Amino acid sequence: MPGDTFGQSFRVTNWGESHGRAIGVVVEGIPPKIEIDEQFIISDLDRRKPGQSKITTSRKEADRVEILSGIEDGKTTGAPVAMMIMNQDGRSKDYDNLKSLFRPSHADFTYQAKYGIRSVAGGGRSSARVTAGTVAAGALAKIILKQFFRSEILAYVVKVKHLKTNLDPLKVTLKEVENNIVRCPDPLIAEKMIDLISKTKKRGDSVGGVIQGVVKNIPAGLGEPVFDKIEADLAKACLSINATKGFEIGSGFDGVELFGSEHNDAFAMDKKKVTTESNFSGGVQGGITNGMPILFKVAFKPTATILQKQKTLSKDKKIVDYQAKGRHDPCVLPRAVPIVEAMTAIVLCDHFLRQRGQVGSFTNV
Amino acid sequence: MPGDTFGQSFRVTNWGESHGRAIGVVVEGIPPKIEIDEQFIISDLDRRKPGQSKITTSRKEADRVEILSGIEDGKTTGAPVAMMIMNQDGRSKDYDNLKSLFRPSHADFTYQAKYGIRSVAGGGRSSARVTAGTVAAGALAKIILKQFFRSEILAYVVKVKHLKTNLDPLKVTLKEVENNIVRCPDPLIAEKMIDLISKTKKRGDSVGGVIQGVVKNIPAGLGEPVFDKIEADLAKACLSINATKGFEIGSGFDGVELFGSEHNDAFAMDKKKVTTESNFSGGVQGGITNGMPILFKVAFKPTATILQKQKTLSKDKKIVDYQAKGRHDPCVLPRAVPIVEAMTAIVLCDHFLRQRGQVGSFTNV
Amino acid sequence: MPGDTFGQSFRVTNWGESHGRAIGVVVEGIPPKIEIDEQFIISDLDRRKPGQSKITTSRKEADRVEILSGIEDGKTTGAPVAMMIMNQDGRSKDYDNLKSLFRPSHADFTYQAKYGIRSVAGGGRSSARVTAGTVAAGALAKIILKQFFRSEILAYVVKVKHLKTNLDPLKVTLKEVENNIVRCPDPLIAEKMIDLISKTKKRGDSVGGVIQGVVKNIPAGLGEPVFDKIEADLAKACLSINATKGFEIGSGFDGVELFGSEHNDAFAMDKKKVTTESNFSGGVQGGITNGMPILFKVAFKPTATILQKQKTLSKDKKIVDYQAKGRHDPCVLPRAVPIVEAMTAIVLCDHFLRQRGQVGSFTNV
Amino acid sequence: MPGDTFGQSFRVTNWGESHGRAIGVVVEGIPPKIEIDEQFIISDLDRRKPGQSKITTSRKEADRVEILSGIEDGKTTGAPVAMMIMNQDGRSKDYDNLKSLFRPSHADFTYQAKYGIRSVAGGGRSSARVTAGTVAAGALAKIILKQFFRSEILAYVVKVKHLKTNLDPLKVTLKEVENNIVRCPDPLIAEKMIDLISKTKKRGDSVGGVIQGVVKNIPAGLGEPVFDKIEADLAKACLSINATKGFEIGSGFDGVELFGSEHNDAFAMDKKKVTTESNFSGGVQGGITNGMPILFKVAFKPTATILQKQKTLSKDKKIVDYQAKGRHDPCVLPRAVPIVEAMTAIVLCDHFLRQRGQVGSFTNV
Repeated sequence: MPGDTFGQSFRVTNWGESHGRAIGVVVEGIPPKIEIDEQFIISDLDRRKPGQSKITTSRKEADRVEILSGIEDGKTTGAPVAMMIMNQDGRSKDYDNLKSLFRPSHADFTYQAKYGIRSVAGGGRSSARVTAGTVAAGALAKIILKQFFRSEILAYVVKVKHLKTNLDPLKVTLKEVENNIVRCPDPLIAEKMIDLISKTKKRGDSVGGVIQGVVKNIPAGLGEPVFDKIEADLAKACLSINATKGFEIGSGFDGVELFGSEHNDAFAMDKKKVTTESNFSGGVQGGITNGMPILFKVAFKPTATILQKQKTLSKDKKIVDYQAKGRHDPCVLPRAVPIVEAMTAIVLCDHFLRQRGQVGSFTNV
Repeated sequence: MPGDTFGQSFRVTNWGESHGRAIGVVVEGIPPKIEIDEQFIISDLDRRKPGQSKITTSRKEADRVEILSGIEDGKTTGAPVAMMIMNQDGRSKDYDNLKSLFRPSHADFTYQAKYGIRSVAGGGRSSARVTAGTVAAGALAKIILKQFFRSEILAYVVKVKHLKTNLDPLKVTLKEVENNIVRCPDPLIAEKMIDLISKTKKRGDSVGGVIQGVVKNIPAGLGEPVFDKIEADLAKACLSINATKGFEIGSGFDGVELFGSEHNDAFAMDKKKVTTESNFSGGVQGGITNGMPILFKVAFKPTATILQKQKTLSKDKKIVDYQAKGRHDPCVLPRAVPIVEAMTAIVLCDHFLRQRGQVGSFTNV
Repeated sequence: MPGDTFGQSFRVTNWGESHGRAIGVVVEGIPPKIEIDEQFIISDLDRRKPGQSKITTSRKEADRVEILSGIEDGKTTGAPVAMMIMNQDGRSKDYDNLKSLFRPSHADFTYQAKYGIRSVAGGGRSSARVTAGTVAAGALAKIILKQFFRSEILAYVVKVKHLKTNLDPLKVTLKEVENNIVRCPDPLIAEKMIDLISKTKKRGDSVGGVIQGVVKNIPAGLGEPVFDKIEADLAKACLSINATKGFEIGSGFDGVELFGSEHNDAFAMDKKKVTTESNFSGGVQGGITNGMPILFKVAFKPTATILQKQKTLSKDKKIVDYQAKGRHDPCVLPRAVPIVEAMTAIVLCDHFLRQRGQVGSFTNV
Repeated sequence: MPGDTFGQSFRVTNWGESHGRAIGVVVEGIPPKIEIDEQFIISDLDRRKPGQSKITTSRKEADRVEILSGIEDGKTTGAPVAMMIMNQDGRSKDYDNLKSLFRPSHADFTYQAKYGIRSVAGGGRSSARVTAGTVAAGALAKIILKQFFRSEILAYVVKVKHLKTNLDPLKVTLKEVENNIVRCPDPLIAEKMIDLISKTKKRGDSVGGVIQGVVKNIPAGLGEPVFDKIEADLAKACLSINATKGFEIGSGFDGVELFGSEHNDAFAMDKKKVTTESNFSGGVQGGITNGMPILFKVAFKPTATILQKQKTLSKDKKIVDYQAKGRHDPCVLPRAVPIVEAMTAIVLCDHFLRQRGQVGSFTNV
């Protein structure tokens, strides 16, 4: 079975290659009669698109989305929404020298191993370019969740290499995130990050980092027992994003150093709403949301494309010299922020529809 | 849609509650004519079962598995294999006082919020007891992968609270892991871990930790582009295990502090086999295995059940005193080791069958 | 991918073989807090069980169902309901002579061709015995649909060989159906059918026939566009029943002889309810229910097992003589009636939950 | 869950509306390195497209397919193939008068009941226009099956109203089918059918009929036990086509009048190949192919759109006069032939890949 589809009740099918004619997405399961603000989809795509700043790749793509179906007079009809983005600035010739090479820590070798054939230009299907479709789908999911629960889904860069902000995630706003090109809401740290990325780029090297995710206003009761836990589906969603190496929710890897007596989240009543004093759980207990904010982190490795000389493998299995040319992101994190948001929104929208189908209710306590 | 099923081509359906009549699993998609050593399944279940040592819960369950279908004369027929374990030591009365309470950092509140009804005894469906079925299913997956590729799937405790071993995961053997009750293959650290868990238990408290997973002899080419990446499915699989809070593959969260020039895994030829000098990728590039060992870690929080007095929430939304009684695991990690192995085997067996279906081959480079 | 699972939101996983230890079913997606009358499940199983009359097989199976999970204090919890029936009267020795033979028009040859191995006793997984689990699952679906919509799902034998009743399906009651052993509500025709089946049985031969399905009180709006149309899913459900060769809805194959001007169902208002004057559509238009009764028919071939001498194929590909011994149903239809009802209920319950998930409503006109 | 996707291992996602911007399909699971003859896809689309003869609708659509992904240098890469057809001759104004009406035996009322909103122009998603995407997907499936097994998949019109041909389906060729505009390979009957359809059209009325499907060169062993039987999936596939009311395989509804001793298909050896003397089974036994030709029939109702005056229902639930205007097919069968072939190819290609995944072989007897 192929792996181009995500979600069950809210189902996203992604298609296209980096340098093919177009990329796109089909989104099934959208409830009818939802008003869709096309500008909102465009705005999320703009946050992801290449060439948006000096610290991203210089590939130029307008990433203009065409909505082909499923919306009539600005409203969803219940039919699948197909969205397409034509590829423009594909320079397939740049990749001619890669036909006989497998680049280190790229997907060249593994795609060849899997299929016995591969799209050389831009990494084909393995390119992060295909996440544009996902971002458009995620924008729909955000709109649905906002309409039903006034949910807010936000991500931001919390760490680049060793540079880290300690802002309280619950206080961060979208405006603060969008205030600088690295998408770190802490202006001082952001400046250092931008400086580091710029210098790294000049040296033809790359850096990684960590993105923080925050979800507010999600009802208690989303998530399914045993396998389809919210944190399990979020982990899958985030680890499906290019260049990711880790996911943690709530207390995560650091939480293992606490005793249970320190880690348990004591209940509290905030007027009539059940809350918890701490939130080491990260908004999820037993795989199901408890109504508290969902908090998680995603680790991104330094970009595999660097412009320094490396040794690599040729198609005829010799170790050869290789020097990458062309455009690349010295740090994927600024552009990955809307992708993390999109995958989060897709997971939660899917679970909202699943919960509504099975239980039909969101007010059981 | 419910969440009791994992996998697509190798499909595991888990059922049962902690204190119901039985728990079990149905495994579909098993290739025919595979010889099944029932003793191997039993042996994996014994590694998971309660009451196996002084640092686990004292609940006594033989966890005797009954194979009800799909195997004839010791061989699989291609039909689903149903396996069942009767519950024995269920003391539902122990839980009477919980009917009117939601325990902190348990699934009591979230199940009530989701369903408007919940199994009080033992946490019902949210109990880690239901992973016994998963371990039995995982044993089948291990047998299949061993037969086709001589794959080895191993997990062990690498950290309890702050106590950590630095053994090379590629050198650890099952025998070393099983050599002590905490399942840490480093005898000196293991002793300290056991000591820490014992003391913590006495104080009625609990601790968490980290499990390392290692997979050897997996062919290159498993995993699907875009969403069903191997690391995405492993992350989902591991985060579906009770009490987990994080997953990382290869360099993980630490890898974000490296430059790309340090992090890229240079190719090398080991006789005729393509390998890499380092393995920051953790055996996966672009979501697809590259033939190197798969290396990952899973974070477990300290057990939510502690025997100290806590404040908690009553059903009528008052904050009340609560003191847990009865049996519990002061640290879930020793018993979680076979569960991590099982989920890993299920993911890889599923992707093996998917690859065989779509591409029909494992030798494309 | 295996084929033991039916449904998406209401998901039935069937397991077991005719002469294995047990057969069973796991049902996922059941809404919580539904009161389950176990006697109702037993009663449906009794309608399907072997040995119930002189015109069915003499195999004796009490078909006592054990509910192993998902129901507490008589109510569903939202967790999967596992049900199991132990096999009792399995005479595997009766089948020893079949090890080296493929019986004509049975699944012996095709299972061997598929798997390279097969369960000889009783046809293993290909036996209609495995539908017992399905009937138990269908009983749950009936209970759910009854509770939400007061739906009534009924099937009966409308034709055996050339003997046919012309009763108005909308006037037939369960009591009339259960009034005789052939399950045809027309007493005169029923008598003739029983006589024909009895005589056929004496000659060691077999007959087929047609079952009529009727569903009342299903809301308009169930079914999904394009592929998962109600009639498509009903057709699949019914053609998955052993020995079926055809399915038709509404006007079916006879309707092709009408002009459109005769076939169109004119709308009418019955007080405030939208109805149609005729019902050639069979309750479904564009794949979606219109609130009218759903009417369909299923064709069953004459049982492949006959007690007359036949030529058949040996394992070493010779044409040899073969004379079946033992127990068999000379006509499967009387016992197939509850199976048709069960599959119908499963399809409709699945679509009810899907509609509730996606649209959240049943009152859009 | 939505219903726009068909298949598991070979997965077809259909999108678009009759008068939207475009319609299309995404096909996942295509094996890599398959040579794709684009002309073959175009040729199948031409057989389905409107305006092809005097007995089809006069809507003019070139139905020019654009392949957007998944094929490079004429070969599949293993990535999803997205195909799109822009809508051209959409006259939305023609439908203005339908905004306040539900047409009899159309999907207008049921879509409104389901979604509370509907695309008025051309029936939106309920239009047979969306099957163009399916035909393109089916062409890919045909190419794959031809390459692996030299399979031939053919459909033709066997009956229009009461006019019927008795040709042996195994002797019919594609050329004979395409030899006349009604796609009945029997020239004398074809002439009568064309005459009947033409006269019916003049009167503003419509007729239905039956399509015969024939599949040659399919290996034994395709199909899955219990639910995903070949005939079950074919029935679902065919009943998902617009205007269908029935499906039968092999002996079908007529076969119920035979005794088992007449109906059983005696085995025979044709050189080294296992065959059967008769083929009442229609190529499938126990849900699994036996290597004989697959034979089935599909019933189509007379088109609901007729140009005669009818009574119908207004949005405010009054019975009103209604007279359809514009273009319509007086008989859908000639254009439905390639759709039946496409759905058949999709089912069989899906089961081929499933069999290869689970069993890895096609030569077990």
